[in-house]
Amino acid sequence: MPHPDIPQLLGFLVLMFAAAKLLGALAQRVGQPAVLGELVAGVLLGGSVLALVDPHHEVLHFLSEVGVVVLLFEIGLETDLAKLLKVGGASSAVAIVGVVLPFALGYGVGKLLGLSDMVAIVAGAALTATSVGITARVLAELGRLQEPESQIILGAAVIDDIVGLVILTVVDGLTRGEEVTFLGVSKVTGLAIGFLTVTLLLGSLVVPPLFRLASRKVQPATLTMLAVMLAFGLAWLANAAGSAVIIGAFAAGLLLARTPQVHDIEKGVAQLGHFFVPLFFVVVGAAVEVRVLNPLDANNWQTLQVAGLLLAAAVLGKFLAGYSPFWLPVKKNVIGAGMIPRGEVGLIFANMGLATKVFDGALFSAVTLMVMVTTFLAPPLLKWLFPPRRASEPHESSGIEGLAADA
Amino acid sequence: MPHPDIPQLLGFLVLMFAAAKLLGALAQRVGQPAVLGELVAGVLLGGSVLALVDPHHEVLHFLSEVGVVVLLFEIGLETDLAKLLKVGGASSAVAIVGVVLPFALGYGVGKLLGLSDMVAIVAGAALTATSVGITARVLAELGRLQEPESQIILGAAVIDDIVGLVILTVVDGLTRGEEVTFLGVSKVTGLAIGFLTVTLLLGSLVVPPLFRLASRKVQPATLTMLAVMLAFGLAWLANAAGSAVIIGAFAAGLLLARTPQVHDIEKGVAQLGHFFVPLFFVVVGAAVEVRVLNPLDANNWQTLQVAGLLLAAAVLGKFLAGYSPFWLPVKKNVIGAGMIPRGEVGLIFANMGLATKVFDGALFSAVTLMVMVTTFLAPPLLKWLFPPRRASEPHESSGIEGLAADA
Repeated sequence: MPHPDIPQLLGFLVLMFAAAKLLGALAQRVGQPAVLGELVAGVLLGGSVLALVDPHHEVLHFLSEVGVVVLLFEIGLETDLAKLLKVGGASSAVAIVGVVLPFALGYGVGKLLGLSDMVAIVAGAALTATSVGITARVLAELGRLQEPESQIILGAAVIDDIVGLVILTVVDGLTRGEEVTFLGVSKVTGLAIGFLTVTLLLGSLVVPPLFRLASRKVQPATLTMLAVMLAFGLAWLANAAGSAVIIGAFAAGLLLARTPQVHDIEKGVAQLGHFFVPLFFVVVGAAVEVRVLNPLDANNWQTLQVAGLLLAAAVLGKFLAGYSPFWLPVKKNVIGAGMIPRGEVGLIFANMGLATKVFDGALFSAVTLMVMVTTFLAPPLLKWLFPPRRASEPHESSGIEGLAADA
Repeated sequence: MPHPDIPQLLGFLVLMFAAAKLLGALAQRVGQPAVLGELVAGVLLGGSVLALVDPHHEVLHFLSEVGVVVLLFEIGLETDLAKLLKVGGASSAVAIVGVVLPFALGYGVGKLLGLSDMVAIVAGAALTATSVGITARVLAELGRLQEPESQIILGAAVIDDIVGLVILTVVDGLTRGEEVTFLGVSKVTGLAIGFLTVTLLLGSLVVPPLFRLASRKVQPATLTMLAVMLAFGLAWLANAAGSAVIIGAFAAGLLLARTPQVHDIEKGVAQLGHFFVPLFFVVVGAAVEVRVLNPLDANNWQTLQVAGLLLAAAVLGKFLAGYSPFWLPVKKNVIGAGMIPRGEVGLIFANMGLATKVFDGALFSAVTLMVMVTTFLAPPLLKWLFPPRRASEPHESSGIEGLAADA
């Protein structure tokens, strides 16, 4: 038989689902967001503890990516574009300060440690990312997705993803010794922003009438599949246009959020979300190397020191960025906390640094550790600063806010 | 970035969903089951026409296997074990005659063509399989899953899957020159039957109370995920116990069919089914080699002749097997027609024959062609012999029967 590992993969999925549900419920029992438990489930199943789940396995990696695509699609479905644009100025300020400040602080830490310019630049770049997935999931769990603070964070995180791609392209060019031209940077930036603008403008004209028409012909389940096709299609297109897949999925959600069929679609997508989304967080957790955390091992001391300095720069930089929309009467500490998690985007920088030999193993571990701690820090911090607002009846919330409303 | 092909895979999924939906609706428009259109969609996207979908790609192959697992799980959820056991005698008769007769006929064709014993045995073995997936999907589409004929076919197909595994093991041993012992064959048979018996007996005691308990604590969406975990878990266990993954998924469905929560579970699983199930049929279709069908190419004549003879043996053998429960007042031609499709199981035999060099390229193509035609023949034949029974209101049928109730 050509693929003998299919039953085994099914078994791994069961393990991942079970651990995610179990530790998610446990996290909630101790007053933490479920996503924290799912991340811990991943750490436990991952390579450095039980070694049951390989986050780099092609199939598991793909399923986890579908998870973050579905998550951002769900977030988009619950987001009002008008509301998002209304806080656009604040989002832009948070995004820009949240890139410049962590980069400067990270570069400073690098120079302080006596690293070369190139190494300090890549380390600084790894601090600029924001993992919209983690924060959005926590805000949804808290029932706070509609608050202005959440809208500002979402907008800033989306802008950060675009900026992150530009930085990634630039840094990638630098590490490979290519010349970085103003034209090249402008092109990448223009493509990414252009994609989102054109998609939202054209899509607003085309998508709602198409879905209104389709809703008369097909069942809700088929309508959901059409919506999923739009999300995956725009995810593909976003990547082809030089943007990120999750931006495409988010844009698809924004477009459908304005259709009268959004409720049916949300319900159908929620069931797919229950399948795919936890896989994303488990796989992110599984990529964590626990060994470098052991303070009893003298080999780790330098790594832990460097990681500590980078972490301080990472947390301080993003947290202070939350105060940049000084003119708005919003909880700035919530915004700052929401921008802290680096998640998978930070890991991409770390991997790039390692692959291009700009980072040695110790610096790679330190950056990974920084990413990990910011990711695990944000959920409890957000919950503490932004206490949950419960829906009147948990069983009614069929959308993403129901993702962890059990227990 | 470590996996640059993720956006591309998302794009392929969109293509597969779109082609499946479009050609499925088209098939229904011309009075055929939607699954026929999905198979054709696969042929068009597959290697021998547009070459857009590679059925052997690890990720697509896995997603399609999840599709057939979810499908058999859905079929199990709609199947009453008591009803299935009531027609157990008829099912067993159909299964046994449906293995012996096609094997004898296939072996006869092989000897008639002057093939060696070994080659004739493998060719005969390839004729014994039944693809429960195709038939079950068609019966579900026709709204006929609860009829005695359908129950007999389902039971026989499940038994056939167990017998098929035994034959596969035996033939695999033969082609590799191993000694086939009575003890070895008995062990394989015993394990496969034992798994199903133990699972259903133990599961009947454990699963319903567990789900009753769980339904008080968690939301329907989480209950659905628990059900999916049971299906995937039993699929893994079935394989580990020497049975087939789809038998495990079917057993999970049978167990949950008796819980009061079955309706909630069916609704949730149906949404996953809309995502995964069409992928299975598209991938089956994509594996079809269209080149060998061209009668203008003289190279294909011998292949077409051999394929024609094997096809006659395949159709006749299974169709006549439908008449073996002579004592029951049921439509025997429907049962016979339902047993005809070989689907993916037949292809496994063909691949094994090729891999072990028992088959040359021409015979491999002939067997593949036979499998293909039986697979494409069954849906229209079944629909013709067993006209659809419509549910009162298509929007009400949230389960698998809703899979193709649009258009």
